[in-house]
Amino acid sequence: MKAKVTVTLKSGVLDPQGRAIEGALKSLGWKGVKGVRVGKSIELEVDEKDPQSAKAVVEKMCEKLLANPVTEKYQIEIITDR
Amino acid sequence: MKAKVTVTLKSGVLDPQGRAIEGALKSLGWKGVKGVRVGKSIELEVDEKDPQSAKAVVEKMCEKLLANPVTEKYQIEIITDR
Repeated sequence: MKAKVTVTLKSGVLDPQGRAIEGALKSLGWKGVKGVRVGKSIELEVDEKDPQSAKAVVEKMCEKLLANPVTEKYQIEIITDR
Repeated sequence: MKAKVTVTLKSGVLDPQGRAIEGALKSLGWKGVKGVRVGKSIELEVDEKDPQSAKAVVEKMCEKLLANPVTEKYQIEIITDR
């Protein structure tokens, strides 16, 4: 079963990469852009048959490896039909 | 209006970061994991009132700066109510 994990920085955490992109977009002429935050998107396939257990497995992966629970939060999406 | 952009490598392009994560997950005991691909997730706010023009603006940003059209593809999601 396929899953998509989005790992983003928690709201209080400074995001220099986001700042840099925001600055670059502004200098390209998009003056109204704001709140740029950059995160990671991880797609993977796990060996589980049903969505619930797949989500549980991916959640453990996030806790152990994919995200840093001190500074990052994550969101898991299970893709059922493809 | 808020938008979420997911930039991922095109399917033919080698993804060493994804390979590394896959290896790490396997060595942590998740033997059945496969197809790990890593991308970027960018959240931003643009100065547009309606979803269609917001999407058009973000599309231009992707072409110009956020994605490398040679190796990457992107997906834009407009978040209307929050």
